[in-house]
Amino acid sequence: MTRFVDVGNMIRWAADRGPENIITEMVRYLEDDFRRWEEFDKTPRVASHTPFGVIELMPTSDHETYGFKYVNGHPSNPGRGFQTVTAFGVLADVHNGYPTFISEMTILTALRTAATSAMVAKTLARRDARRLALIGTGSQSEFQALAFRGVLGIDKLTVWDTDPAAIEKFVRNVRPLGFDVTVASSAADAVREADIITTCTADKAKATILTADSIAPGVHINAIGGDCPGKTELDAEILERGDVFVEFDPQTRIEGEIQQMPADFAVTEFWRVLCGNAPGRTSDDQITVFDSVGFAVEDFSALRYARDSVAGTDFFEEIDLVANPDDPKDLFGLIGALSPSR
Amino acid sequence: MTRFVDVGNMIRWAADRGPENIITEMVRYLEDDFRRWEEFDKTPRVASHTPFGVIELMPTSDHETYGFKYVNGHPSNPGRGFQTVTAFGVLADVHNGYPTFISEMTILTALRTAATSAMVAKTLARRDARRLALIGTGSQSEFQALAFRGVLGIDKLTVWDTDPAAIEKFVRNVRPLGFDVTVASSAADAVREADIITTCTADKAKATILTADSIAPGVHINAIGGDCPGKTELDAEILERGDVFVEFDPQTRIEGEIQQMPADFAVTEFWRVLCGNAPGRTSDDQITVFDSVGFAVEDFSALRYARDSVAGTDFFEEIDLVANPDDPKDLFGLIGALSPSR
Repeated sequence: MTRFVDVGNMIRWAADRGPENIITEMVRYLEDDFRRWEEFDKTPRVASHTPFGVIELMPTSDHETYGFKYVNGHPSNPGRGFQTVTAFGVLADVHNGYPTFISEMTILTALRTAATSAMVAKTLARRDARRLALIGTGSQSEFQALAFRGVLGIDKLTVWDTDPAAIEKFVRNVRPLGFDVTVASSAADAVREADIITTCTADKAKATILTADSIAPGVHINAIGGDCPGKTELDAEILERGDVFVEFDPQTRIEGEIQQMPADFAVTEFWRVLCGNAPGRTSDDQITVFDSVGFAVEDFSALRYARDSVAGTDFFEEIDLVANPDDPKDLFGLIGALSPSR
Repeated sequence: MTRFVDVGNMIRWAADRGPENIITEMVRYLEDDFRRWEEFDKTPRVASHTPFGVIELMPTSDHETYGFKYVNGHPSNPGRGFQTVTAFGVLADVHNGYPTFISEMTILTALRTAATSAMVAKTLARRDARRLALIGTGSQSEFQALAFRGVLGIDKLTVWDTDPAAIEKFVRNVRPLGFDVTVASSAADAVREADIITTCTADKAKATILTADSIAPGVHINAIGGDCPGKTELDAEILERGDVFVEFDPQTRIEGEIQQMPADFAVTEFWRVLCGNAPGRTSDDQITVFDSVGFAVEDFSALRYARDSVAGTDFFEEIDLVANPDDPKDLFGLIGALSPSR
């Protein structure tokens, strides 16, 4: 049998454990997997593009466990009452190829994206960082706020979005959770006193959410909205002034902010910093940029964590996904045994 | 909600409709999709190899519907009480990226492989073909027998396998279904009077199940066991004497019988024959070879057929795989609404 976490169980699990706790614990799984980065089979995601959006498969394996995520990205979906991004994921046992765990991943991806942001900022942001600016208050924003509080202790937020209803929704969701929230009057206003900036806007277009002159020395920028070909958020000059860190170089060159830059533009894969093989932040004046696009290993970590966390609870069901006749050569017998013609 | 056919419902559906009827109807879906071959996004499968086997993702899309199959291949599994091949598949709506249909595909793949064999033989075998030789009586064999009877009217079978228990199982399964079955004493003996030969053995090795001197003029060979790198069944001389037809040239060069041949060895993609763009059988003496490895479009056809066939029945459940908040930007609200801390 395969364990299955549907949307209802994911919501009950997340509410029961608390999203801030989940993100904080998930960071440990992420760090474990980023530290053994070289063990993983890695490949850029397999994308099927259409005029309306994209459907992608993101596989990886550590040679014990195989995992993949199905995920779509359809920027026009919200206007039609659908989610921009929906996802589900699967883990399988490499030794016999059987799927062992299936989970909804729309909510789980929101948790893992925030956990990844916090893991990277914990290493790259200034130690004395106290204020987070959030540009974009859509689906990912509350998860970002909880991640930075849970992992870095940051509870001062300045937020901005071009959609006033989205800001109002964000404030309504996070004020009761004890955050000190300031609503800015523009993106430039939002980042004025920020130590860390998260950009998470969703236009499928080359946009300039932030210009270089608004970025103060010492800031860490967590750029998660530029994540597919033709979609960027940052002024190229910011990338030139800062040091840029990425997940998986071959994928980020196609999908990230650095798609704007020459092919030989220098970046550092984050796992190297975590392992001590490459420098991260080297001064308090340095601007660090995490050009995050989301990589299969992060989904693998999130699925591993969810699998382990729901074990022993009632937050999953068992589904029968693998036909298993007593005689492995007698698959037909499964049908014949029931067939009325016999 | 996403419609889900688990193993139990697949078995009930297959027994209720009858596997021979299913295969015959599925051939119509396959032919529809092979006739519009050029409309599909096609890519060789995405494989993750390990010492024990392989896990693969097989995506395709016709720009209305997206589909993929997860499938493993672990030749040592039966010795450990597991299936060599297990699979499940997904259809999604390209317009919003939402998954619409999920099905077990261990049994469904067995049905689609047999349906594909029969579709090709209907076009390439001699019109007067009356006897099928089956070399290999494992999981696929009974489905082959039903496919050739349902689609080509063939009910005379000669069978051979190196495992006597597998032959006994096959005879036990198909004799009650009205077939005229002869058990041969060797592979060469089995093919002596055959008009069509199916080879479906499962060793992950370069084997020679049949040599060229045992192949009579006019035979159609349906070679389905050689389907991954390092695994072949036919003497290279058979491929030289016959005309070879394939599903998707770039994938078959890696995985099929023709991996033994030079890179410029001439083959014909079958869809061209079906569309009248390339010759198929041109004489009664010609040897035709279908070097079948299984391609994503066939799984797409099988999933489409299963989806349509179970509609309006109770052979599926609905599962909640896609988180769908009322406000698409308020994903967090799904958790917050339940969270005890609020």
